[in-house]
Amino acid sequence: MTHETLGSNAEAGASVGLVVTQNVRLFDEESPLVLESGETLAPVDVAYETYGELNAERSNAIVFCHALTGDAHAAGHHGGPKTEGWWDSMIGPGKPVGTNEYFVICSNLLGGCSGTTGPSSIDPATGKPYGLRFPHFSVRDLVEVQRALLRKLGIEKLYAGVGGSLGGMQILQWALDHPDEMKNALLICATSRLTPENIAFSSVARNAIMRDVNFQNGDYYGTGCEPDSGLAVARMLAHITYLSGEALETKFGRERREAKGQAQGPTFGIDFQIESYLDHQGEKFLKRFDANTYLYLSRVMDYFDPFADEDAVVEGLRENPTRFLVVSFDTDWRFSTSHSLEIARVLERAGCDFVREEIASPWGHDSFLLPVPAYHQLVRDFLADKR
Amino acid sequence: MTHETLGSNAEAGASVGLVVTQNVRLFDEESPLVLESGETLAPVDVAYETYGELNAERSNAIVFCHALTGDAHAAGHHGGPKTEGWWDSMIGPGKPVGTNEYFVICSNLLGGCSGTTGPSSIDPATGKPYGLRFPHFSVRDLVEVQRALLRKLGIEKLYAGVGGSLGGMQILQWALDHPDEMKNALLICATSRLTPENIAFSSVARNAIMRDVNFQNGDYYGTGCEPDSGLAVARMLAHITYLSGEALETKFGRERREAKGQAQGPTFGIDFQIESYLDHQGEKFLKRFDANTYLYLSRVMDYFDPFADEDAVVEGLRENPTRFLVVSFDTDWRFSTSHSLEIARVLERAGCDFVREEIASPWGHDSFLLPVPAYHQLVRDFLADKR
Repeated sequence: MTHETLGSNAEAGASVGLVVTQNVRLFDEESPLVLESGETLAPVDVAYETYGELNAERSNAIVFCHALTGDAHAAGHHGGPKTEGWWDSMIGPGKPVGTNEYFVICSNLLGGCSGTTGPSSIDPATGKPYGLRFPHFSVRDLVEVQRALLRKLGIEKLYAGVGGSLGGMQILQWALDHPDEMKNALLICATSRLTPENIAFSSVARNAIMRDVNFQNGDYYGTGCEPDSGLAVARMLAHITYLSGEALETKFGRERREAKGQAQGPTFGIDFQIESYLDHQGEKFLKRFDANTYLYLSRVMDYFDPFADEDAVVEGLRENPTRFLVVSFDTDWRFSTSHSLEIARVLERAGCDFVREEIASPWGHDSFLLPVPAYHQLVRDFLADKR
Repeated sequence: MTHETLGSNAEAGASVGLVVTQNVRLFDEESPLVLESGETLAPVDVAYETYGELNAERSNAIVFCHALTGDAHAAGHHGGPKTEGWWDSMIGPGKPVGTNEYFVICSNLLGGCSGTTGPSSIDPATGKPYGLRFPHFSVRDLVEVQRALLRKLGIEKLYAGVGGSLGGMQILQWALDHPDEMKNALLICATSRLTPENIAFSSVARNAIMRDVNFQNGDYYGTGCEPDSGLAVARMLAHITYLSGEALETKFGRERREAKGQAQGPTFGIDFQIESYLDHQGEKFLKRFDANTYLYLSRVMDYFDPFADEDAVVEGLRENPTRFLVVSFDTDWRFSTSHSLEIARVLERAGCDFVREEIASPWGHDSFLLPVPAYHQLVRDFLADKR
């Protein structure tokens, strides 16, 4: 997607340049990952990238947690502009998270499909991909795997944790569970609890995948018949919710595709530009994403509810030294400002140090990935402790 | 769906009682329906119901146009409360559209699947169901078929036309094309033009159907493999857009299903109540609806754009004797008040006689089918010329 008014080079600051994704085994048979459910999992390999240098005091590390369909490749490129990281506008020399000052780590989440162990990985018990035999896990489990990576990298304390959407949910859980490990927590269009409407959209997306006859109860790997239809529909649906109605109006309106210079008659094919956009998003997604990962990572969001026992949370948050930044965007209707207000309400009850801001931006939920000037300035200032 | 605070018997007024759906051939080989595109179609049969009695002056007829998934059975019942018509709260003795005063006609739309000729009908040229060989048609064509029905019934002029959503779009087209035929036009959560977001939701729904491997390019009839998965997903998605986030919160919240008295663990099955609701809506829909009809009737909405040449429309509307009622609901985000404002803006430019009101109701787009007191009173008063 292009946002004409907001090119990713709109801000000063260079790319971190060529980067490589690394891979590390964090848990094995002898020392398996113990999930919150009590189930164990081994081996667990994690794909990650780092940008910048860890300083001698090991005090400048910032973790980025990715959202539903992200991966370890947050910044820099893998060999050219077409392989730019998904949050390259945020991370790099001179960018809001400056890689001359900070050492940035981003890893593919547990359950992912871009190098970290997930449902498409081989289950050593069967020699076949896990599929739906992969255990369910929680946002806390996502955090624990990333904490294990930090230990491996010799990092005990983070200067900051940053995440948008599901990424922000992980940062929230992390700050609640291990307040001494995270000096600053940046929660960007995050939530402490999905609404029924949020769950409904995710449920329909999962239905599209699981009702696809090629889904084969998750055991589609290697059969040559993958649930591509369902996964594309899931992605198309999600994309509607990532943009505001206003953004769709601005970008597409009711424009039709040029049909060889002629106005096209009524068709069930692609005619309006918005249809072309959604179709492209659906097809592009199939090349890089696994349907089972979509199921696991969307479902973990539905169950996330860290404030369920609010009084206990408030008690636990007292004396919490973490500074929180809670950001939302005024046209985001997926995780609207009301979600941020709910997080801020609990932080306030506990007397935490926090800044909450709603940023004006026409691009809806997608805004968090875009170089919206006021938003980037806010992140920059917060990290510099000027807010 | 039950709306606890708004039972369909919440208002005074009896049912019109037992009714039957009738069927009439309106166009045949010798006198085919000529569509706006110039294509012809024959035969065209129409299923319809009537309630109340046509008076001697033939001046008390009111047409109801149904929405995307409606049928001819608007009021009364077919043998018991479970077969109640879809707008029974609106139509009946003592109800807002009183059947002691008015003669009400409702027919299944062209392209429908409940008695009127549509893509599941037999194409006389092949002896097989049309499928996607059924011609594309316009909202104007939907109106023309209903006008032919009125001529058959000996009715030249309507006291009123009433419709919600796609139904209201038909009434708008009718009033624009034949102002002398319609004394009162009631446009309820209607639109003169879908937004790209509206089109996007419909496009994803159609994609769910057409990408279903059982769709078979529309020729699934009699194969034993119908695109049930796609149609169910389309319906589930649509249902999210019919209700407001507030309504989903009130009705379902984050409530879980009782799993035999125990809290259920994480599952990809149905766990949250909202999932159960959507699943039920999807399954129920399969029993009564045809996937190809869904394609045709949703697509006709996308192309609807009667104000495209606004100046000409304004010119045509001058001296238009029709009184318009333009109603929206404050929590309807499918066809929000902004759609009604756009209709009203053009009516105002042309100096038409109209009333526009936004009704407060928590139930979103669904509100138009519910006995919201202020809304029902408004319809009652408008028909009685008290507004």
